[in-house]
Amino acid sequence: MSARSMIAVLGGSGHQGRGLVRRFAQAGMPVVVGSRDPARARALVSEWPSSASIEIDTNAAAVARADVVVLTVPFPSVAPLLDEVRSHFRAGALVIDVTVPVAFAGGKMSMLEVPELSAAEHVRARVPEHVAVAGAFKTLPAHALDDIEQPLDCDEFVCGDSEDARARASMLVQVIAGLRAVDVGPLARARSIEHVTALAIAINRRHKIHSARFRVVGLA
Amino acid sequence: MSARSMIAVLGGSGHQGRGLVRRFAQAGMPVVVGSRDPARARALVSEWPSSASIEIDTNAAAVARADVVVLTVPFPSVAPLLDEVRSHFRAGALVIDVTVPVAFAGGKMSMLEVPELSAAEHVRARVPEHVAVAGAFKTLPAHALDDIEQPLDCDEFVCGDSEDARARASMLVQVIAGLRAVDVGPLARARSIEHVTALAIAINRRHKIHSARFRVVGLA
Repeated sequence: MSARSMIAVLGGSGHQGRGLVRRFAQAGMPVVVGSRDPARARALVSEWPSSASIEIDTNAAAVARADVVVLTVPFPSVAPLLDEVRSHFRAGALVIDVTVPVAFAGGKMSMLEVPELSAAEHVRARVPEHVAVAGAFKTLPAHALDDIEQPLDCDEFVCGDSEDARARASMLVQVIAGLRAVDVGPLARARSIEHVTALAIAINRRHKIHSARFRVVGLA
Repeated sequence: MSARSMIAVLGGSGHQGRGLVRRFAQAGMPVVVGSRDPARARALVSEWPSSASIEIDTNAAAVARADVVVLTVPFPSVAPLLDEVRSHFRAGALVIDVTVPVAFAGGKMSMLEVPELSAAEHVRARVPEHVAVAGAFKTLPAHALDDIEQPLDCDEFVCGDSEDARARASMLVQVIAGLRAVDVGPLARARSIEHVTALAIAINRRHKIHSARFRVVGLA
């Protein structure tokens, strides 16, 4: 991934996306926020400090411009969104899936059953074959990401459908200060990564904290 | 759990059990190893340094003596073992399930589909109602546990079917030097914990290490 690779973050003005968008911009990467409602997204983004370099576009137009497309919408929006943008991917684009199939009902969190077994494989089934897919940034708490003056201090698990997809996603993880990428292998490992996120949410709720995250011990 | 609670470790002379048995004994807890073949287990245990205080018994006899029964057999042995010992549990006993439903075939690791969704719930379905069940020690690499001269340096996730079960299991985690117990709530969370183990195994294989383990960041 070159330093000038254009990154589109779909859902980038929302809860999960905004910390990533600002951290990519902070690292000097060109970023475009994709939104269903670019005017509303522009209003939100303009309230962030030092957001001048962050562009806004429709989801389809953002995908058409991007070398890397990062999906940060809520899991139930993934399928309709990919239907909408499917024909707009550039040849050789990489999709990084950040979504996690969890639902909150009556104050309880649960994993959704996904026919493809993981959100990342759900994404794989919905993008063109020439597009590579990786999973990353799934276990990072939005609360910690948002606090962009603080470097992060944890590891991020990366899986993907090729060595190249994992390498590109790992590079993007590591442009964020303080994050270490841990390659865990094939895309199907996303299922386990998504369970790690469920565990982080459970720890947050049980211990009344906001930003449980993980470090792998024993990995040089 | 009092300092004199008797701990039975079923499968305690095997790969997953032997590090736990020695660490419990090292912490001054009375431990009995339960085995299908007590003579063979005794021969194995007698080769460990400072193993004089470790008792050996049949699985059924070990269960009958224990306040806490720790299950460290391979997952496929859990159901027949619990059928065998089911009538021997003491009133108020706690079972701590350490098993993980993973299989290795042709050099590849995969999670087994468990009808009850997790190994811990598989155990819950097979012990008497008066027995409490917790899951713990599932993400600790045998290789790190075995090296008993080294204190551990990671966290262990604990789930259980009651606050009391989790508190008792957490106390047992914390008698081991260097381990911190992280309560993640109800027994059904074992499914996510078991996926964390799968991830640790994937990291070990991919990065050619033996003892990937985890720390939760952001938890005081």
